[in-house]
Amino acid sequence: MRQPLARELHDLIERGRDRQLRLAVTGLSRSGKTAFLTSLVNQLRHVGLEARLDLLPAARQGRLLGARRVNQQDLGVPRFPYDQAMAALAETPPRWPEPTRGISELRLVLRYRPAKRGWLGGESRQLTLDLFDYPGEWLLDLPLLAHDYPSWCRRQQALAGEQRRAHFAAWHAAVESLDPTAEADEARLAEIAEHYAEGLRAAREAGFADLQPGRFLLPGDLAGAPVLQFFPLPGVAEADPAALATLPPESNYATLARRFAYYQQHIVKPFYRDHFRRFDRQIVLVDLLGALNAGPERFQDLSRALANLMQSFDYGKRSLLSRLFAPRIDRLAIAATKADHVTPEQHPRLVALLEALLAEPLKDLRFASVPVRALSLAAIRASEAREVEHRGQRTPALRGTGLDGEALLLYPGEVPERLPDDAFWARQGFAYPAFRPLPLEGGALPHIRMDAVLDWLIGDKLS
Amino acid sequence: MRQPLARELHDLIERGRDRQLRLAVTGLSRSGKTAFLTSLVNQLRHVGLEARLDLLPAARQGRLLGARRVNQQDLGVPRFPYDQAMAALAETPPRWPEPTRGISELRLVLRYRPAKRGWLGGESRQLTLDLFDYPGEWLLDLPLLAHDYPSWCRRQQALAGEQRRAHFAAWHAAVESLDPTAEADEARLAEIAEHYAEGLRAAREAGFADLQPGRFLLPGDLAGAPVLQFFPLPGVAEADPAALATLPPESNYATLARRFAYYQQHIVKPFYRDHFRRFDRQIVLVDLLGALNAGPERFQDLSRALANLMQSFDYGKRSLLSRLFAPRIDRLAIAATKADHVTPEQHPRLVALLEALLAEPLKDLRFASVPVRALSLAAIRASEAREVEHRGQRTPALRGTGLDGEALLLYPGEVPERLPDDAFWARQGFAYPAFRPLPLEGGALPHIRMDAVLDWLIGDKLS
Repeated sequence: MRQPLARELHDLIERGRDRQLRLAVTGLSRSGKTAFLTSLVNQLRHVGLEARLDLLPAARQGRLLGARRVNQQDLGVPRFPYDQAMAALAETPPRWPEPTRGISELRLVLRYRPAKRGWLGGESRQLTLDLFDYPGEWLLDLPLLAHDYPSWCRRQQALAGEQRRAHFAAWHAAVESLDPTAEADEARLAEIAEHYAEGLRAAREAGFADLQPGRFLLPGDLAGAPVLQFFPLPGVAEADPAALATLPPESNYATLARRFAYYQQHIVKPFYRDHFRRFDRQIVLVDLLGALNAGPERFQDLSRALANLMQSFDYGKRSLLSRLFAPRIDRLAIAATKADHVTPEQHPRLVALLEALLAEPLKDLRFASVPVRALSLAAIRASEAREVEHRGQRTPALRGTGLDGEALLLYPGEVPERLPDDAFWARQGFAYPAFRPLPLEGGALPHIRMDAVLDWLIGDKLS
Repeated sequence: MRQPLARELHDLIERGRDRQLRLAVTGLSRSGKTAFLTSLVNQLRHVGLEARLDLLPAARQGRLLGARRVNQQDLGVPRFPYDQAMAALAETPPRWPEPTRGISELRLVLRYRPAKRGWLGGESRQLTLDLFDYPGEWLLDLPLLAHDYPSWCRRQQALAGEQRRAHFAAWHAAVESLDPTAEADEARLAEIAEHYAEGLRAAREAGFADLQPGRFLLPGDLAGAPVLQFFPLPGVAEADPAALATLPPESNYATLARRFAYYQQHIVKPFYRDHFRRFDRQIVLVDLLGALNAGPERFQDLSRALANLMQSFDYGKRSLLSRLFAPRIDRLAIAATKADHVTPEQHPRLVALLEALLAEPLKDLRFASVPVRALSLAAIRASEAREVEHRGQRTPALRGTGLDGEALLLYPGEVPERLPDDAFWARQGFAYPAFRPLPLEGGALPHIRMDAVLDWLIGDKLS
């Protein structure tokens, strides 16, 4: 009788150990976070019914029995607005859901039968899945922790490309006459900082992503607080550090440096301490096609932003993050979203391009033994793949409805397999289309490879 | 030589002791907080120049030398938007400033010469004046700390007058069918809570003031968080407490009770702990004339709200506040604002009515030895007092411009000296006018009795 009892005990421990999984979803703004989380919840709630999840073994084998929403634990964090998102998709004509701002969460309980039946037979188990959604812009602030104020100023100055600089013209004009050694005038600093925040917002609007400080873009309750009223001082890069350190505390320089330090301590660090550190798994969403549409400078900028962002997952011994906190993400997915904007035979090229764009960070992650996988997906598929006759040949095409309601049938072109170089950009640009969501037909949302993503992110916990 | 040295030492200590004063301004929404703080800063900045501050001895005697804005200490609190307020007043036509939301602060440094010249002669001193502005609605939540969830439900149920109840019709319809013992559905609770918040907003819009939970009206970053998704359960008042306590944690009742407790711990208490406890002096602004305009039910409601609000200043031994925190406000002012909406000879009656309305709380405060003073003021005077001929008699009148730009010359009527009873309300209503601000003419803002308020709140620190 001993062996079955031991196995039963093992089962019990297993059950306890795998009871909870904290899965975080991030991405820069407009990368498709809201659509992804909406679809993820939707697929799991329709599991065993209409959801098509063949690439998730537990679903294919009929072992994933269902999912239901339960009360989340942290009552002070907004709930992910799943119902509002579904309501938007159900409108006539359907609408893409409103993007979320800040962090939100949602808790699901999954019921499943283990693949190997234990001594107790086909008893079902539960997995509590906590889903988190937070702006990728917050991760862009991690590198800011490695700087002091003067070195951050130097770094920001080095970023300025021509198009990017154009968005900051009003700020440049305002900051030029600011004397770092003069006594600070709060109202004037607030005004210059507002120009800086306007520049950041305009640059984001235009498709730039490598924007610091990230919280300037979503100030929330901190709007108007001095902690969000600093900016890089152009003169600092050339100034003598020793001379700067002796400036009086009322000076512009010392005031801005104090706010920068406060931002590090009270805004950036609490996010890593209170939220990030507790995530078990993470998916980073990237709108690669949108960046290609936007042209070379912004594509380059996205590449830099993603490299910054990925530092948050690099737990190498010498990493800033490991020194400050003890993060524990044990599995990572990087996904190129909106794969339904290109024809299916382009999907492998999309993944190849994503891997090329993230080659350096992926190398670091693998070196630090963080399991990571790159894929392409459409969380809510909005187009249908077709074949059309073109000059006597059958060629692939997409059919859908444009954002303005016009019927589209087109071939959006190829995805470059490699990072486009200057010669490439000189030769051609990109114009991948955007689609309105398909009308809801009851059942689960149409998708591309959400099941593959689910398998990578939670599949092992359902075995 | 000993005496002069001792005196010098005394001066130094004096200087240290009085270096800083933290003055808080509150009032329910639309009580005139923004206008008050704007005028206060404006008067102090124009001291010795154009400001008319004869009732403030330090100003009258020419000892108050000036005031300047300096960097505030807490970088995470929004700065009071003085410049934006002045810009609104300077527009053509002038506009009332946008109301503030949440807490804000601003720091002034006042330079003054002491009334008694010390051994060192006419040396000037500095007083750092920290100004805070926060919604009176937050104080309305203090009594909520004295309740558990069932007793709070009972209390909220007892509040419902006919007009007030009308604003909550949608919520009543939604909550009726909610079974307290059934398993909680987060989405449904969120929906019912949104109806409750809508009811609170509509009631506030209609002039009601005694509204809990106060943070529902200004959710900020907490929008969508479960902590702001509770409401009183109508059935609870009649239910058996022992039976309620045995309901499972997933039940509607237990879920709502948990959120209520979280709200107490994480929203209400931190305000008293982090902000309120540190204020030295406080002024509470009351729009008494607006409440008279709104009629008996809302006037009654204001009275109840103010009684609740004033509990925050009652440091009697048995008070909730003293048990939980150690507040230290050592001087309090209660002011009826917008005194320029009635003719000058009515001002004493306005103060008398304010004292009658607050008779009970004022008694408690005096019993607890908190020095308190009631007065009437117009922070930014928008009308001019005139006399007109009426049936051969000279009678007082007001001249100004209405909010829609029409020229006004009128007698707004008397202010009741006592609390109006039912017979009084049956006989007459009130219709005090509202005015657009006067065009800025350079110099300090016109006001009524800002100098008297300043004398009570900071005068002793300038002696």
